[in-house]
Amino acid sequence: MTNVLDLFVERIGLIKSYEESLALLSWDLRTGAPRKGMDVRSQSIGNLSGEMFKLATAPELGEWLTELEKPDTYEGLNEVHKRLVTETRKDYDRSVKIPPKLYQEYVVLTSQAETFWEEAKANSDYASFEPYLDKIINYTNQFIDLWGVKGTRYDTLLDMYEPGMTTAELDRVFGGLREKLVPLSAAIAASPHQPETGFLKQSYAKEAQKKFSLFILDQLGFDFSGGRLDESAHPFATGLNPGDVRITTRYLTDDVTSALFGTIHECGHAMYEQNIRQDLIGTTLCTGTSMGIHESQSRFWENVIGRSLSFWSRYYGDLQQHFPNQLEVPMEDFYRATNVVQPSLIRIEADELTYNLHIIIRYEMEKLIFNEGVKASELPELWNEKYKEYLGIEPANDGEGVLQDVHWSGGAFGYFPSYSLGNMYAAQITDTLEREMPNIWELVENGNLHPIKDWLTDKVYQYGKLKTPSELIVDITGKPLDPDYLFTYLEKKYSAIYKL
Amino acid sequence: MTNVLDLFVERIGLIKSYEESLALLSWDLRTGAPRKGMDVRSQSIGNLSGEMFKLATAPELGEWLTELEKPDTYEGLNEVHKRLVTETRKDYDRSVKIPPKLYQEYVVLTSQAETFWEEAKANSDYASFEPYLDKIINYTNQFIDLWGVKGTRYDTLLDMYEPGMTTAELDRVFGGLREKLVPLSAAIAASPHQPETGFLKQSYAKEAQKKFSLFILDQLGFDFSGGRLDESAHPFATGLNPGDVRITTRYLTDDVTSALFGTIHECGHAMYEQNIRQDLIGTTLCTGTSMGIHESQSRFWENVIGRSLSFWSRYYGDLQQHFPNQLEVPMEDFYRATNVVQPSLIRIEADELTYNLHIIIRYEMEKLIFNEGVKASELPELWNEKYKEYLGIEPANDGEGVLQDVHWSGGAFGYFPSYSLGNMYAAQITDTLEREMPNIWELVENGNLHPIKDWLTDKVYQYGKLKTPSELIVDITGKPLDPDYLFTYLEKKYSAIYKL
Repeated sequence: MTNVLDLFVERIGLIKSYEESLALLSWDLRTGAPRKGMDVRSQSIGNLSGEMFKLATAPELGEWLTELEKPDTYEGLNEVHKRLVTETRKDYDRSVKIPPKLYQEYVVLTSQAETFWEEAKANSDYASFEPYLDKIINYTNQFIDLWGVKGTRYDTLLDMYEPGMTTAELDRVFGGLREKLVPLSAAIAASPHQPETGFLKQSYAKEAQKKFSLFILDQLGFDFSGGRLDESAHPFATGLNPGDVRITTRYLTDDVTSALFGTIHECGHAMYEQNIRQDLIGTTLCTGTSMGIHESQSRFWENVIGRSLSFWSRYYGDLQQHFPNQLEVPMEDFYRATNVVQPSLIRIEADELTYNLHIIIRYEMEKLIFNEGVKASELPELWNEKYKEYLGIEPANDGEGVLQDVHWSGGAFGYFPSYSLGNMYAAQITDTLEREMPNIWELVENGNLHPIKDWLTDKVYQYGKLKTPSELIVDITGKPLDPDYLFTYLEKKYSAIYKL
Repeated sequence: MTNVLDLFVERIGLIKSYEESLALLSWDLRTGAPRKGMDVRSQSIGNLSGEMFKLATAPELGEWLTELEKPDTYEGLNEVHKRLVTETRKDYDRSVKIPPKLYQEYVVLTSQAETFWEEAKANSDYASFEPYLDKIINYTNQFIDLWGVKGTRYDTLLDMYEPGMTTAELDRVFGGLREKLVPLSAAIAASPHQPETGFLKQSYAKEAQKKFSLFILDQLGFDFSGGRLDESAHPFATGLNPGDVRITTRYLTDDVTSALFGTIHECGHAMYEQNIRQDLIGTTLCTGTSMGIHESQSRFWENVIGRSLSFWSRYYGDLQQHFPNQLEVPMEDFYRATNVVQPSLIRIEADELTYNLHIIIRYEMEKLIFNEGVKASELPELWNEKYKEYLGIEPANDGEGVLQDVHWSGGAFGYFPSYSLGNMYAAQITDTLEREMPNIWELVENGNLHPIKDWLTDKVYQYGKLKTPSELIVDITGKPLDPDYLFTYLEKKYSAIYKL
C-alpha cells in the first residue's frame, strides 16, 4: 500500500512541477517576453499543458486513487494525503471526460485569443475578437456537456472556481446585495458631502510610486526573499511555490491610486501563497482553496485595511514625503478621496461599493450565455443595456465596454463572481477578526500590521487547499457565507464618509 | 508513411517545447528568481528534464526513426526532415545506451557537485572537491564505455559539443597555433609600446553603461522585438525560439569594458539564434550547429568587429558622450587599451590572444584524464606546471587555478575546445567575408553594420543545425578548418598595436 501512496505522491509532485513551469511561462509572457516569440510560446504552453493533462488523466492515476480510497487504506492516511486523494479524485473525474486533443486545442486557442483581445480592446474593435470569443464559448459548452450538468449549465463552471457554488446560491446572495446596494448608492449620490478628488490626478513620478510600493509591501509583510514585484499591463499575482510568489503592478503617472491600491491588492494574494504550510509544498494543495477566498484576502488588504482611516493616519505622512508637492491636503481629505463612490465604466477602477454591481452584470451575462444560449454577437448590446440599468451610464465604445476584461479571452467563465464573493468573505472574516483582536485598529494606526498577517496565516493562509472554502468560512466565523456582513460594513463606512 | 512522419515531427515539436520551457526556467533562476524558491525550482527542472528524457528515448521514437530511415522513405523527405532524422538518430542512439538509473545518479551527483565546487573555489580547497570530481570522471568513463569509443576515448566527448571533432584534428590545429602563439606572446611582452589602461578602471555609472549597451545592440542588429537584455552575475545568451532570444550582461561600475564587450559577445550569440530559418522553428534543428560555431559568432562580433580600430573610429565619440569625464584620451589610446595583451591566471578575463593558451591547457588536461587515465588527485600540480610553461605564471592557490571554471563540476568534459575553435572559425570566416565584401571596414567606420549581419545570416545563421560545423565552414570558406587564419589575424592586429 505504501508503494501506491508513493507512486501517487510522486505523480502529484510531477503535476505540480508542470504547474510551476506553466505559471512561469505565463508570468513571463505578461511581464516582458518579446512579442515575436509569442506564437511559439503559445505552442509550448499548449504542449506542456497537454503533457500535464495526460499525466493528470492517466489510467494508472485512477487505479491508485481507487486503491487509496478503500476505507481501510484511506483511514490510515494522514490529513494531507486524505485531502489530496479527495481533491485529486474530483479533478481526475472532471478531466478524464475531456479528450486530450480537445483540451490542447482549447489551450492554444485561449493563449492566442488573449493577444487578439488585447488588440481588439486597444482598437475598440469587437468584430475582430468576436470569432475567438465565439469559439471559446463553443469549446466551453462542449466541456459542460462532457462534464455533465448539475443544476444549471452555468453551475458546472462556477464549481471550478468556487467549489460547491451554484446559480441558486449566487442569485440569493447577489440578489440580496443588489437590493440593498442600489438605494445606498442612490443616497450616496444624493449626499451634499462629495469628496474632492482632483488632487489624486496630478503628475506622480513613476520612480517615487515604485519606491512607495516597495515600502508598503514591506510594511504589510510581503516577503521579498520569497517574492518579487514587476510591472505588467494588468496587475496580477502568481504563486509558483511559497518561496517564489510574484506580483505585478502598473504605474500611472497621472493617478497615484492605481499602483498604490493595486499593489496592496496583489500583496494580499501573495501573502496567502507565501504562508502556506511547508508540508503542502510540492502538492496540488499548495495554493489558495478557491478564487473567492483568494480574492477575500486581496480585498481585505486593499479595502478593509488599505482604504481605512487608521491605515492612512499612519502612512499618509510617508506618502506625502514621496509627493510633497502633490499631497498638500489633510489626511482626512485623502482618505475620503480614495473612498469616493462614483458609478463608472471600468470594473478595475470601480470603488469598493459599485464594484459589486460590475460583477453582478458579468454574472448575469455569463448566466445568459450558458443557461440561455445568448451568442457572442449579442454581448455588446446586452452589456451596454445592463450598464445603463444598474449604473446609469453607458460605454462610448466596446473598448471601455464588453472588451474591458481579459477573462473571457482566457475562457474563464464563472470566475467573475469570485470577486464579489471575496468582498463578502472578507467582510465576514473581518467581523470575527475585530472580535478576536479588539485592538486591531490601534495596531493599524501604529503600523503594526504583522499580527494581522499572522492571524490570517493561522486562520486562512497556512491551510492552502486543505480546507474547502465552506469549511474554512465556518471554521473561522462559525457560520456559512452571509452577504449581510458586506452590506453592514459598506453601510457603516460610507454613511460616515458621506454623512448619510 | 506520412503518418509516421507526422508522429515523428510532432514528437520533435514536443521535445522542443520542453527545451524552451527548461531554458526559461533556467534563465529566470539566473536573472532574478527569489532565492527561497530555488529548491522547489530545482525539483521542477529535474522533473521536466526527466519527462523530456523519457520522450526522447521512448521505444516508439526508435521505431519511427527506423521507418523513416528506409531508403525509399528517406529519399522522399525534404532536406529539413532528412537532417532531423539524422540528428535525432544520433541523439537517440546516444541516449538509449545510458540506463535511466545511472543517468539519474549522474544528474544528482553533478547538481550537488556544482554547489561543492562553488565552496571549494571560494576556499581554494581542492581536497574537498576532489572526491566529487573523481566520481564525475568515473561516471563519464562509464558513459564513454556505453557510447562506444571511436578513435580515442576523449573523441567520444568532443563529438558531443563539436560533431565530428577528434583529438587528432585538435592536436593538429592547437599544436600549430600554440607553436606560433608562444613566440608572438613573448614578443608582445617584450615590446616597449605597452598600452596605458588605467583610465578604463574608473567610476562608470551603471545607468550610462546600460544606455550605451542598448544603443550598441541596436547598432549591431539585435532585434529587440524578438529579444531582451537583462542582468545576471555571469553573462549568457539563451534562444528560447528565434522570436525570443535573451541576453544578459553584468555592469561593473569600476570597469567600462566588462559590460561593453560582454554585451557585444552575447549579441553575437543572439543574432545567430534570431536569424534561423522559419521552417526550422519548432524543431530541434532550430539552434546553433555546434558550440564552436556559436562561439565563432560571439567572438567575431566581440573581437573582430568590436575590438577593431574601425569600430571605435565610429563609436568612440558616442561612448565619450556617455562618459565625458572618464574618457578624455584619444580614440587610438582607447583602442589600444581594450586590446592589451597580458598573460593572466583567469580564463574569462584573458585577452583575445592568450585566451587560446588557457583553452589549450584545459584541452591537454582533459586528454590526459580520459586517454591516459590521469587521476583527479594529479590535476592541481599538472595545472600549475602548464600555466608556468605556456603563460609563464603560476597560480598562488587552486581557487585561481584548477578550481576556477564551473565546467568540470557539471561533467562538461570536451566543451573547452569550443572556445578556441570559435576563434579559429571566426578568423577563417572573416577572411572570406573580407574578400566577398571588400568595403567591410568602410562599412564599420560608417556604423553600417547590418550588411555584415545579413552576410552572416546568409552564410551561417539561417541554417541552424541544418548543416554540420564542417559542412558549414567548407561551404563558406571553401576549405576545412585551418588554424593559420587565426594566427595571421592575431599577428597582423597585435604587430600593429605593439609595433613589433
